[in-house]
Amino acid sequence: MTQTVPAELDPALIKQIIAAVDAGFEEQCQLTEKVISFPSLRGQEATAQDFMAQTYRSRGLSVDHWKIDLGDIQHLPGFSPVAVSYDNAFNVVATHRPREATGRSLILNGHMDVVPTGPLDLWTKPPFHPWRDGDWLYGRGGGDMKAGLVCALSAFDALSRLGLQPAANCYFQSVTEEECTGNGALACLARGYRADAAIIPEPSDMCLVAGQLGVMWFQVKLQGRPAHVGWAGTGSNAIEASFPIIAALHELEAKWNAARHQNWADHPHPINFVVSKIEGGDWTSSVPAWCTFDMRISFYPGMKLEQVRRDIEDTVRQAAGNHPFLANNPPQVIYHGFQAEPYIVTGGEAAQATLRRSHRSVTGEDPADVSLTATTDARFFGLYAGIPALVYGPKAIDIHGFDERVSMRSMRDVTCTIALFMAQWCGVEKRN
Amino acid sequence: MTQTVPAELDPALIKQIIAAVDAGFEEQCQLTEKVISFPSLRGQEATAQDFMAQTYRSRGLSVDHWKIDLGDIQHLPGFSPVAVSYDNAFNVVATHRPREATGRSLILNGHMDVVPTGPLDLWTKPPFHPWRDGDWLYGRGGGDMKAGLVCALSAFDALSRLGLQPAANCYFQSVTEEECTGNGALACLARGYRADAAIIPEPSDMCLVAGQLGVMWFQVKLQGRPAHVGWAGTGSNAIEASFPIIAALHELEAKWNAARHQNWADHPHPINFVVSKIEGGDWTSSVPAWCTFDMRISFYPGMKLEQVRRDIEDTVRQAAGNHPFLANNPPQVIYHGFQAEPYIVTGGEAAQATLRRSHRSVTGEDPADVSLTATTDARFFGLYAGIPALVYGPKAIDIHGFDERVSMRSMRDVTCTIALFMAQWCGVEKRN
Repeated sequence: MTQTVPAELDPALIKQIIAAVDAGFEEQCQLTEKVISFPSLRGQEATAQDFMAQTYRSRGLSVDHWKIDLGDIQHLPGFSPVAVSYDNAFNVVATHRPREATGRSLILNGHMDVVPTGPLDLWTKPPFHPWRDGDWLYGRGGGDMKAGLVCALSAFDALSRLGLQPAANCYFQSVTEEECTGNGALACLARGYRADAAIIPEPSDMCLVAGQLGVMWFQVKLQGRPAHVGWAGTGSNAIEASFPIIAALHELEAKWNAARHQNWADHPHPINFVVSKIEGGDWTSSVPAWCTFDMRISFYPGMKLEQVRRDIEDTVRQAAGNHPFLANNPPQVIYHGFQAEPYIVTGGEAAQATLRRSHRSVTGEDPADVSLTATTDARFFGLYAGIPALVYGPKAIDIHGFDERVSMRSMRDVTCTIALFMAQWCGVEKRN
Repeated sequence: MTQTVPAELDPALIKQIIAAVDAGFEEQCQLTEKVISFPSLRGQEATAQDFMAQTYRSRGLSVDHWKIDLGDIQHLPGFSPVAVSYDNAFNVVATHRPREATGRSLILNGHMDVVPTGPLDLWTKPPFHPWRDGDWLYGRGGGDMKAGLVCALSAFDALSRLGLQPAANCYFQSVTEEECTGNGALACLARGYRADAAIIPEPSDMCLVAGQLGVMWFQVKLQGRPAHVGWAGTGSNAIEASFPIIAALHELEAKWNAARHQNWADHPHPINFVVSKIEGGDWTSSVPAWCTFDMRISFYPGMKLEQVRRDIEDTVRQAAGNHPFLANNPPQVIYHGFQAEPYIVTGGEAAQATLRRSHRSVTGEDPADVSLTATTDARFFGLYAGIPALVYGPKAIDIHGFDERVSMRSMRDVTCTIALFMAQWCGVEKRN
């Protein structure tokens, strides 16, 4: 599908839209703080989603609020095995339908789930009590990506403030599961949501994302031969046996970093294999009989999931082969969570040009292009539904870290850009 | 205190005592199985202790059954910081008092707590459902050391069967906390129990233990700098930061193994530093902000606890100094559980000679001398109460491992040896 770039907006309207964003900006920041205040860790985001449904409804949007059902998605391409229970996994999609659909439709997608805080004593203030300092708005999930989620709705609010609304369907998606599988976005596809373009305001420092790596989670389960520690030599330590396996996986990481994909040609270290969780042993005076570690890896466009899994398993098997106990008791590799294919944005030239133009109207400059070393839900729209999916959002620091924070100036600029994009891409009509 | 070796028993009495052990041996095995069937993990041993109290009472012994009170022991030498709650930590001491105390008194000490099973699927049969195969009696805690605990009482039962009883006080101690601190044995001292000798039938393969290493538990807590895994280089991985710390500790272990103490001169690897538990990280897509590992180490007689702790802390600090993040965020070293001093049996010549003679009467050979690479509760009696404490018990395999098992033949032989020891050391008188 080749799309033409929509007509430019009247300069006066551009000014009005930007002024309307500014007029609502304090309200937008307060809404962002309210959303951050929900501790919407995966498995605990349902109350935050209730709040979003209510927030969308208060704008007169039509709200679809449902529990993710594995039966709807587990057969679909892009599905990842469940890492965290869906007992409490709700999606919310709010739809604006114009009186006359003359423009192009748009999905504005964001995720509500946030990653764990880590030790609380390392935060300056409690992570779910947002606070401001200069340009920074602090709080877990503020950058990744509640600020962006609110930017999308605030862009719509800015048009409303001018008595306008998009002249095409707009879908405001607040999904879950982005941080472990993306099955929330997949469930939106399964439910039939489609549009001519999608924007995901993940924290991109206002760069326009050209592509993203594939991401995979796996778990390696090692056995040991337990023994009394007084005779440790008669046992095999499952914890220490994991160290050479991890080292071998890092060698594979180095190999992939050396064979750079063009989109990451200038990146110092695009591929990251990270041992992110470990657990092993039951008793301090027993040689541990088990150890399990979790790893997150990334890989380039062009690499297939199956080949990646084969490479991982070969690496683990070869390293285990050099270990006296593991050679005969090979570790198990288990896949749960992300099995996320890489994604390079294609067929999105018209949407990209519109976004660039909008960004320029706000900042006076072209947005930088970037390829992410992580994944986002953009892949679902692009790979499995043919919808060009642009990732473009605020500037944030220490996402997944302590004292996560998002730049309010960038929230304002991103909201302006999205509002201008919406007005061009969808067109506008008068509100009733 | 120099003690003289008691007179030898009449050869006819020796035969009678051995025959009396054999007569009760099936009953003894069944009692051992019954005791093994209690899943008396530390914190869950109270029902097994109830059973022991009842078993002792059924022999007419006077039973002291009490909850360990930190206030009674925490000021005493030999105390170790609590590793597992004492909410459910009960000791049982059963006392035999003769009509006329003409012989030497004896403590027979054993522990009821057992170590965790590890993954159940690696056991041939459920660990707390004891079963027999040939000479082996299987079950968690059978070897370490319920079989020995029952041997002590069965030796008393054998004398009873002959219408005899020890002519001195005998204390049958079923304690807890041996597997993590020894505070159960310490609580017996605090309660005033003393005797002229102690025997602990820990699984020693019927060797006579001459000494035991010191044992220490500690925990190292590492911080990291969390980050999104897509930009892992901006973070510091707390899990992987533990690897060089562990490696440095192993260098200290190698140094101590090289500088061999005479009692372990022929041992291939007396000193064992074992990483036995590890835990770290909260989320697979976050660089982990924390990691904690537990280590058990051992050290020679002559080494002071304080010096050992200094060596550990120096090693951790030096290794951390080479790490970009840890250099400014040094790991914490925390001591909980074993702070157990080494112990070489001294002043026990008379008791040792009596035990050797008894063993020879049963097996026709001298028992081998051995120095343990682990600790036992013997140190409390020897170091803090001047009571020579002999460790001598059955043959067991895979203690702290899977399919732990104890040789029934050795249970029988150890019971005979203890009964003969009791008859010589305490003397005998007719039962009423």
